[in-house]
Amino acid sequence: MPLTPDQLAETEALRATPRPTLRAVAPGMEAHLYRPIPVLDHGFVRVVDYMGDDAAICQAARVSYGRGTKSVQGDEGLIRYLMRHWHSTPFEMCEVKLHVKLPMFVARQWIRHRTANVNEYSARYSILDREFYIPDPSSLAAQSSVNNQGRGETLTNDEAARVLDWLKGDAARAYDHYEAMISQEGQQGLARELARMNLPANIYTQWYWKVDLHNLFHFLRLRADSHAQYEIRVYAEAICTVVRDWVPHAWAAFEDYRLGGLTLSARAAALLRRRLAGEVVAFEDSGLSRGEWREFVEEWGEQPPLTPS
Amino acid sequence: MPLTPDQLAETEALRATPRPTLRAVAPGMEAHLYRPIPVLDHGFVRVVDYMGDDAAICQAARVSYGRGTKSVQGDEGLIRYLMRHWHSTPFEMCEVKLHVKLPMFVARQWIRHRTANVNEYSARYSILDREFYIPDPSSLAAQSSVNNQGRGETLTNDEAARVLDWLKGDAARAYDHYEAMISQEGQQGLARELARMNLPANIYTQWYWKVDLHNLFHFLRLRADSHAQYEIRVYAEAICTVVRDWVPHAWAAFEDYRLGGLTLSARAAALLRRRLAGEVVAFEDSGLSRGEWREFVEEWGEQPPLTPS
Amino acid sequence: MPLTPDQLAETEALRATPRPTLRAVAPGMEAHLYRPIPVLDHGFVRVVDYMGDDAAICQAARVSYGRGTKSVQGDEGLIRYLMRHWHSTPFEMCEVKLHVKLPMFVARQWIRHRTANVNEYSARYSILDREFYIPDPSSLAAQSSVNNQGRGETLTNDEAARVLDWLKGDAARAYDHYEAMISQEGQQGLARELARMNLPANIYTQWYWKVDLHNLFHFLRLRADSHAQYEIRVYAEAICTVVRDWVPHAWAAFEDYRLGGLTLSARAAALLRRRLAGEVVAFEDSGLSRGEWREFVEEWGEQPPLTPS
Amino acid sequence: MPLTPDQLAETEALRATPRPTLRAVAPGMEAHLYRPIPVLDHGFVRVVDYMGDDAAICQAARVSYGRGTKSVQGDEGLIRYLMRHWHSTPFEMCEVKLHVKLPMFVARQWIRHRTANVNEYSARYSILDREFYIPDPSSLAAQSSVNNQGRGETLTNDEAARVLDWLKGDAARAYDHYEAMISQEGQQGLARELARMNLPANIYTQWYWKVDLHNLFHFLRLRADSHAQYEIRVYAEAICTVVRDWVPHAWAAFEDYRLGGLTLSARAAALLRRRLAGEVVAFEDSGLSRGEWREFVEEWGEQPPLTPS
Repeated sequence: MPLTPDQLAETEALRATPRPTLRAVAPGMEAHLYRPIPVLDHGFVRVVDYMGDDAAICQAARVSYGRGTKSVQGDEGLIRYLMRHWHSTPFEMCEVKLHVKLPMFVARQWIRHRTANVNEYSARYSILDREFYIPDPSSLAAQSSVNNQGRGETLTNDEAARVLDWLKGDAARAYDHYEAMISQEGQQGLARELARMNLPANIYTQWYWKVDLHNLFHFLRLRADSHAQYEIRVYAEAICTVVRDWVPHAWAAFEDYRLGGLTLSARAAALLRRRLAGEVVAFEDSGLSRGEWREFVEEWGEQPPLTPS
Repeated sequence: MPLTPDQLAETEALRATPRPTLRAVAPGMEAHLYRPIPVLDHGFVRVVDYMGDDAAICQAARVSYGRGTKSVQGDEGLIRYLMRHWHSTPFEMCEVKLHVKLPMFVARQWIRHRTANVNEYSARYSILDREFYIPDPSSLAAQSSVNNQGRGETLTNDEAARVLDWLKGDAARAYDHYEAMISQEGQQGLARELARMNLPANIYTQWYWKVDLHNLFHFLRLRADSHAQYEIRVYAEAICTVVRDWVPHAWAAFEDYRLGGLTLSARAAALLRRRLAGEVVAFEDSGLSRGEWREFVEEWGEQPPLTPS
Repeated sequence: MPLTPDQLAETEALRATPRPTLRAVAPGMEAHLYRPIPVLDHGFVRVVDYMGDDAAICQAARVSYGRGTKSVQGDEGLIRYLMRHWHSTPFEMCEVKLHVKLPMFVARQWIRHRTANVNEYSARYSILDREFYIPDPSSLAAQSSVNNQGRGETLTNDEAARVLDWLKGDAARAYDHYEAMISQEGQQGLARELARMNLPANIYTQWYWKVDLHNLFHFLRLRADSHAQYEIRVYAEAICTVVRDWVPHAWAAFEDYRLGGLTLSARAAALLRRRLAGEVVAFEDSGLSRGEWREFVEEWGEQPPLTPS
Repeated sequence: MPLTPDQLAETEALRATPRPTLRAVAPGMEAHLYRPIPVLDHGFVRVVDYMGDDAAICQAARVSYGRGTKSVQGDEGLIRYLMRHWHSTPFEMCEVKLHVKLPMFVARQWIRHRTANVNEYSARYSILDREFYIPDPSSLAAQSSVNNQGRGETLTNDEAARVLDWLKGDAARAYDHYEAMISQEGQQGLARELARMNLPANIYTQWYWKVDLHNLFHFLRLRADSHAQYEIRVYAEAICTVVRDWVPHAWAAFEDYRLGGLTLSARAAALLRRRLAGEVVAFEDSGLSRGEWREFVEEWGEQPPLTPS
């Protein structure tokens, strides 16, 4: 989304006048404030406000664990300790408020994360803009043949062109009729709360979304994951770049323990122990189901890695 | 929504075999179990499970307030006392699980009530049915001229006919293209998670929604209200009939104190006291804003009621 | 609580260096930052961080309701409108983080407000200080004879002196034994997580408590109320002074519509209408229970106000 | 806690009259209903009500994932799949209501789990019983020398005896004074809400606690863990036995993936891969901190396991 001159001007106006504060200030976040990060064809994420920084996480932890913690370890080590041992409440002490513009079907996934505050543009009250998400041809993929809720290969040019024609044409026609229905020229004009039902799920909406860092990490773990739908994942990835600049230590710990970390079931851990002890374990003898075995091998490789004589 | 023979058969199968339980049983709710209550043209609400009854509310209250409460007042009086004094936790001790089929734009309003559990039909995973909410002509109303988020007069026949043509035509075409896009005959077939974006907001979805009675009352107070959009209000009203049969005392207290009750600001209460004392108060002398005065007069009437000579 | 020189010095150090920020700044709140407001004999409340101001509430509301709202009404009118019509989400866009030192029995009431973030001093991990809440004699009141969960008259001097002797003596002895149990001189020393069980509920604890403005208002409505226990009410009142300086328009609306406002049941409203119409209604004819009638008369006075000839 | 004849009689009365229901019935849970499971010296846990069973979890999942899921896998496999992939919402469709009697310092830990409904005995309203948790000598342990929030070795007999004398003596005296303060014989009698502050944290309280299965699992993962304080862990373990009988498939999946499962950081996983590939990795070369290395070795053993010539 190339920003319009108006948007750029508004952003710079908001950024023009720093004011003094006695609160914790995160320099990496000040650089982001109000600046839209483009996402998809018309969407964006931008930081509207924030509270706290890495030090605020440690400060809250030290209220809980007493003075001793300061001497023992610096902020980075303490944050890693908290993350490793699932001490989530200190991370709740940071908060961020985002302004997000996103397609409605993405908003429907997003809103399922309940522990957050939301103010969404009201289509009962106001008229929606004529802006629809039309995927880039490179994002038009076939239904996955192995995963019921995923994508497979990219569509061929012909099929992609057909899809794009339909998406564009139906959106345009739906919006034309939306406008015609609410128009008050020469007619009464249908109530907005009714007319909106004609609009497809790729229309853009926007909202303010405010969330604490612990719940944001939970959101990012699920939505920046490779199994998340591409259209929400790009929003999550944009937010990741923001969080990295905001709370670098917390971000690094999150990346190591959550995003890059993995979970083993008791059965999988036992299997790994047998492998480490040199035992060659076949599927039949693994105690795992077919699906778990497949996931295990994806993660840890086939065994033996064929050690020929 | 006339139930199909299949649906009726499934419902009766689920109702065929009562089993013994030692839990609290609410006879009024047993009569509702699994039976869809039709709402709008294709939607329904049905009770899938419940926990607790009026007595369970009192039982929890008596854990808090001790044994003495039993002798002093019966269940009905205790429940009215709890409701009057905003003691919400005993009402949280009842829980209900509903199966709801509803248009997507209604679902988007509904989901804003965050303190509930939801499992919604996944359009990433499964194919949506060809079912759209097409309003009855009597529900097609113009934008309200006084309230930015409401409806005014019913549309004339001509205008209504035009609206219905568009709603039906656009929905049919959008669904045709949805089917064509996901089809795997002679092409790869677009992933479902993408194809769904072409579908308009009046398509039906469904979910299981589980909520405690306190939060359900909050939902009903907002959504069974005359200012709520008609299309969600009819769901709220269907649920009201269920709650009335489930916990009759709690329902009666809710109706008296919340649904039928009203809130006065300090300024409005002062104004009412002046009226009670016989004073005639004009707008200019009321301390209320124009909007508050209008709402006050709607509620309490003009004054004086014209005492002519 | 007279602040110690150390506390004063720490506070002033935290306040010494303002830094520039591009975020919303609330001048009234900057003046409060880090400064403890004394509560009870050893407790305090102080603001550690905050997010948002009156304008942030309006900004979020305008995202929902669209551009039109700006021209129609100023921030103050919009905030009053939101409060009057129970639009709670814009108020959730402000957040405050408090550092509170409070007796444990007060903490137990406070924590029942679930929608907040908390980091409490851990008595598993650290050693509690020898600080107990000992009420001022003027706060030592008898059990109420009319309200099972309230206070009546102040105790006589003799009885108060007896109570204070017990409270002080038992707390001192319990703490002596606590110290003796965890001591590692000449013995193993009992684990802190066990030793703490000997300490009475008037010992002081402390926590960071972070909450959004909507939920804070809910807390204040219940805890700054005259029916709340005195020892939590004084904390709520201290927080009220902070909120008044932070978001003056929101505070004023809250005071008018919630703190000073009142709720009428449908029955009570009907009764009021009959009175307004000039009818004299007796209890027997009111449709109210004995308890509701008493509360109604407390609020609206006896009737008739004796209109003698 | 040996149950009193009164308690046994009350329990059996509640169990005497099964009634027919059309809801899901979990036979394993019916056997538990109302029967207190003794915990600590005077505490208990008992099931007061429940909603749902293993099939209800699958039913909700199948609403989300569509009809296809039924044929593919049975309930057990589906539940394992949901647990493995962190699909938490279907587990929220089960709910349980427990009546718990527990020491106050345990209640303070427990209440930090916010996503639950609670009605606690009110010491503002009612008089607490003279019942205190006095640990068994075998549970009296020294402060851990390696873990700031844990226990080490059991106390010697002498030291244990000293501790028990203090705990018993202080509790008895505190309760005597509590009774003396609230007594209305020959004096006004201090308000209960004030007198309670003299009581130590090992006094018993009780509550109704209602929670969904997903949040209950979260509670059990943290509180049935070996690092949890013994006095709350025994409650968690009692609840585990209940859950096992209630939803056996969900319990088995929880045990395998959560209780018995473990989490690897990206660094630890990389280290494990190097070990699996036959590399011998020393601490200095591991990329782990000292604390993480210790935890890693505890889990996966020293390496090499000494492969002598």
